[in-house]
Amino acid sequence: MKLAIYGYGNLGRGVECAAAAAPDAELIGVFTRRAPETVKVHSDVPVYHASELENFKDKIDVLIICGGSATDLPEMTPALAKDFNVLDSFDTHAAIPVHFDNVDRAAKESGHIALISAGWDPGMFSLNRLYASAVLPEGKDYTFWGRGVSQGHSDAIRRIDGVLDARQYTVPVPAALDAVRAGEQPELTTREKHTRECYVVAEEGADLARIEREIKTMPNYFADYDTTVTFITMDELKRDHAGIPHGGSVIRTGVTGWNGEHKHVIEYSLKLDSNPEFTSSVLVAFARAIYKMHGRGVTGCKTVFDVAPADLSPLSPEELRAKML
Amino acid sequence: MKLAIYGYGNLGRGVECAAAAAPDAELIGVFTRRAPETVKVHSDVPVYHASELENFKDKIDVLIICGGSATDLPEMTPALAKDFNVLDSFDTHAAIPVHFDNVDRAAKESGHIALISAGWDPGMFSLNRLYASAVLPEGKDYTFWGRGVSQGHSDAIRRIDGVLDARQYTVPVPAALDAVRAGEQPELTTREKHTRECYVVAEEGADLARIEREIKTMPNYFADYDTTVTFITMDELKRDHAGIPHGGSVIRTGVTGWNGEHKHVIEYSLKLDSNPEFTSSVLVAFARAIYKMHGRGVTGCKTVFDVAPADLSPLSPEELRAKML
Repeated sequence: MKLAIYGYGNLGRGVECAAAAAPDAELIGVFTRRAPETVKVHSDVPVYHASELENFKDKIDVLIICGGSATDLPEMTPALAKDFNVLDSFDTHAAIPVHFDNVDRAAKESGHIALISAGWDPGMFSLNRLYASAVLPEGKDYTFWGRGVSQGHSDAIRRIDGVLDARQYTVPVPAALDAVRAGEQPELTTREKHTRECYVVAEEGADLARIEREIKTMPNYFADYDTTVTFITMDELKRDHAGIPHGGSVIRTGVTGWNGEHKHVIEYSLKLDSNPEFTSSVLVAFARAIYKMHGRGVTGCKTVFDVAPADLSPLSPEELRAKML
Repeated sequence: MKLAIYGYGNLGRGVECAAAAAPDAELIGVFTRRAPETVKVHSDVPVYHASELENFKDKIDVLIICGGSATDLPEMTPALAKDFNVLDSFDTHAAIPVHFDNVDRAAKESGHIALISAGWDPGMFSLNRLYASAVLPEGKDYTFWGRGVSQGHSDAIRRIDGVLDARQYTVPVPAALDAVRAGEQPELTTREKHTRECYVVAEEGADLARIEREIKTMPNYFADYDTTVTFITMDELKRDHAGIPHGGSVIRTGVTGWNGEHKHVIEYSLKLDSNPEFTSSVLVAFARAIYKMHGRGVTGCKTVFDVAPADLSPLSPEELRAKML
């Protein structure tokens, strides 16, 4: 399958690498809205300006759109679905139904297939929420994130006056995890589920007490959490916080039996050294799936819920049954 | 959807209960090869002799076959697929390709759909092996079982002269689990992965040393494992070992990055109070899926790999996208 990347940030870089690791994928180009000569790719894949895409209408099996969910993807994915099979990692959970409808309309009209919201959450975590709830109808779901870097929260700290750089880790509360895993089905507040650790590089002479106060009282981002703020130097930030690890757990506990007498715990957990590289690997697997599905005549917008797992693998159905079932 | 059960042992009892917990299922009968009046069901579902099935050809949407993999299912599933949409939990991994072909032929000829090898292994564990390998092509898979009761190993002990009853627990070795979770990708022998704990009730005056020796040296079942044998009384067995718990973990560790510099760990784990009741819950979810698929005209034999996750849920695609994605 011939893949192309639209947008070359952390995620686009990850897809470049994940496509190289896939035995059946060929990456035919990176498309950017910047000046192509300013974009340094890692491999020898050609870089084109986004405006050249119209010359590639029959040369790309799946276009993987690596844009941001806030403003890029709501515009890009429906627009590009008019000419290509497309895939994105749209992750604004509340806006998924509207995005789905827009992409579905464009893809159906043009006879293409699209898949939105691939990645690990939404994505692999969503799949596990669905499987677990289908199997254990009488139960309760929990999602814990971390320990990992939240880009959105790190950005929010950087916008504070006097802050040069920052890294925010989301950390699940061990006691909450233990209670959930024990099948106790606790009711947990936001504060009881996660803590937030902030590592902040401040300008020389900045009012550290004010910065700490502004972080800890920031609505939505930090006010509802137990937050710790640690000031470090730029050298320390670069040395100790260069990575973008993440992960988490989706847990469902439920009961079976005529009197609900048997408890069951289903847990799916991820421990990722590189959030964007793992997300990219998920994207390439779902690119394979929609490529196969389009070959069978399927059009319109899909999500991870609509993809039969066998379509994600480069192995044949016979090999899968013999080796993995 | 109208379900029926064929065979009423531990698994059939579990399906009876799981069908009652499903919001969209109606259980219309239990079919048995025994004398129906000798079969005591828990609910008020009618019990019929297996020979009466021919009168139910248009009255059952999915027939869930609750037989044994050794001799029952290889005969039953292809035979019943001639008249019904069928589902089984065939779990002899090595014989799956042959069983698949036999069932596929029967189901395609008759225009029915069948799904084999549903449960948790094969089943949910298989799905997680497939998803993880598709997402992390450069990696290594591990499956650990337990702590839980192995019926097959318990039965093997019961066949030893002088043994009245026995319960065998399969237990993963903590050090092996730790090494795998740390992403070390160890090569593990059978002995290094699991230990076997046996609780045995012997006849009065039996030669306990001989029984212990026969267990520990039994080929395939125990010889390759570190096995402990504890003799207990029948009262202790009934008091402390009445349940049928099981579980385990499927773990894939792999790398991404141009130099494989980023490690990732994907783990799916189950902790089940009742192995047959959880397996039954999986069966009912997949019964829902093949019922929907058959409504769309799909025929032939399928496995869990061929089922789009959305088909497992009683919720609509719109609800799933809004609530679980």
